[in-house]
Amino acid sequence: MNNIDDPAFQAEIWSVAEEMADAARAVILPHFRASGLSAENKDQSGFDPVTIADKAAEQAMRDVLAARRPLDGILGEEFGSSQGDSGLTWVLDPIDGTRGFISGTPTWGVLISLNDVSGPRLGVIDQPYIKERFCGGFGRAEVIGPQGSAPLAVRGTCDLGEAVLFSTFPEVGTAQDRAAFEAVMNEVKLTRFGCDCYAYGLLAAGQIDLVIEAGLNAYDIAAPIGVIEAAGGIVTNWEGGKVHEGGRSLAAATPELHAKAMTLLQNSLRGSGAVS
Amino acid sequence: MNNIDDPAFQAEIWSVAEEMADAARAVILPHFRASGLSAENKDQSGFDPVTIADKAAEQAMRDVLAARRPLDGILGEEFGSSQGDSGLTWVLDPIDGTRGFISGTPTWGVLISLNDVSGPRLGVIDQPYIKERFCGGFGRAEVIGPQGSAPLAVRGTCDLGEAVLFSTFPEVGTAQDRAAFEAVMNEVKLTRFGCDCYAYGLLAAGQIDLVIEAGLNAYDIAAPIGVIEAAGGIVTNWEGGKVHEGGRSLAAATPELHAKAMTLLQNSLRGSGAVS
Repeated sequence: MNNIDDPAFQAEIWSVAEEMADAARAVILPHFRASGLSAENKDQSGFDPVTIADKAAEQAMRDVLAARRPLDGILGEEFGSSQGDSGLTWVLDPIDGTRGFISGTPTWGVLISLNDVSGPRLGVIDQPYIKERFCGGFGRAEVIGPQGSAPLAVRGTCDLGEAVLFSTFPEVGTAQDRAAFEAVMNEVKLTRFGCDCYAYGLLAAGQIDLVIEAGLNAYDIAAPIGVIEAAGGIVTNWEGGKVHEGGRSLAAATPELHAKAMTLLQNSLRGSGAVS
Repeated sequence: MNNIDDPAFQAEIWSVAEEMADAARAVILPHFRASGLSAENKDQSGFDPVTIADKAAEQAMRDVLAARRPLDGILGEEFGSSQGDSGLTWVLDPIDGTRGFISGTPTWGVLISLNDVSGPRLGVIDQPYIKERFCGGFGRAEVIGPQGSAPLAVRGTCDLGEAVLFSTFPEVGTAQDRAAFEAVMNEVKLTRFGCDCYAYGLLAAGQIDLVIEAGLNAYDIAAPIGVIEAAGGIVTNWEGGKVHEGGRSLAAATPELHAKAMTLLQNSLRGSGAVS
């Protein structure tokens, strides 16, 4: 067992995580916007650039782990889970936001987190096309992008009326989930849709205040938790509990804002009869 | 009067347009994500980075025109319109997608077009943060971005069931407009929100198939028209007429897809009583 609080160990882990992100970038980018650029390319014939890029990127990340962290567990979207012997598990989503990916948007991302028994300790949200990487954990909170690097820190918004809310789709989870989401949406300053995992990076960067989603898998949310918590924010499920294994997520810049949003979500769910 | 069909004149115009886009980039980027990165920065005090960046960028573009094309007309979002003597008018939106800009997303843009009496002849959609520029007109159809340059060409989608549709917000125009939009949304393969002007670039790049919006001003749509027409696409209002002076836009990859979407829009509007 390694001592996860040892700075030298943490530096090594960061080196592994960034090598994985670099490897995923290199594998995915040749597939991004690769089809459709020609008006002649109407043939579908079973070719699926997302699947190819997804699988190749997860394999590339697993290859890094096989070489550098062979005893850690892995939970990946494409190739399932393997138990490790180190007490640490890497949680991988090679392309989060596949519908954004196939539409050519620049807000899908590669998600990497390292979890111990308590949950995510490190998170990476990488956007290969922009070459932007949100990194949080082990005392680090930093975004490295086309303008260089900058610290990540949530902003201090405490009031819903001042908050900017993001979600990927207007259709959030079940009809009851959607009604609860809309109860928050009706109170905030601005709601935007469509940013996939990039929205969590914007929250960590102090640009927005809330991200609310439903129906998440562990690999969708573990890395955002690592990034946002490192930046001073809070991520739970809609009941205020841990969400790193998936479900309905509520990410907020401040505890005050988190509490206000959660109250609206819960009141709506109770009113709909979904919660007793 | 210049001969707008002269290749040397067209090269000169492209040089002016790109100098304008470069000038706007340089002025805007220091303001993007400039506030809010620190959790301490809760003071609002009337500081509005969008207004500052908007006005400074339009002024920077006007400075280029004053030096290089002093006889052309200008229509800008921030400083209004001035009649020229050349028969040509530059239409400028220094930051299209201000709500995206203040949220830190990378899909707002600088819009530049050159119109003659027939409408847009050249369009530029520039995304300063990604350093991506969609250029169309005078025989040119090209995107220059972080991966280098690539030709712009719409793809050949003819069926709504195969189409990817974008709009900036789920609330499209009036209630009647929204119902008409949703009539199309219900038939397409995938609908995404939130991309501001970047969606028009994706259409020109063959990544998506339809963009439908309402309530546009001339400076919102002139540059996208220039880019998309150069890439082989079609942009009209919801009645099939010219839309470069603003209104409700329907941009499509192919005439077939355009016709099918317009039929749904018109049938919905007729059904609602908004059109006799």
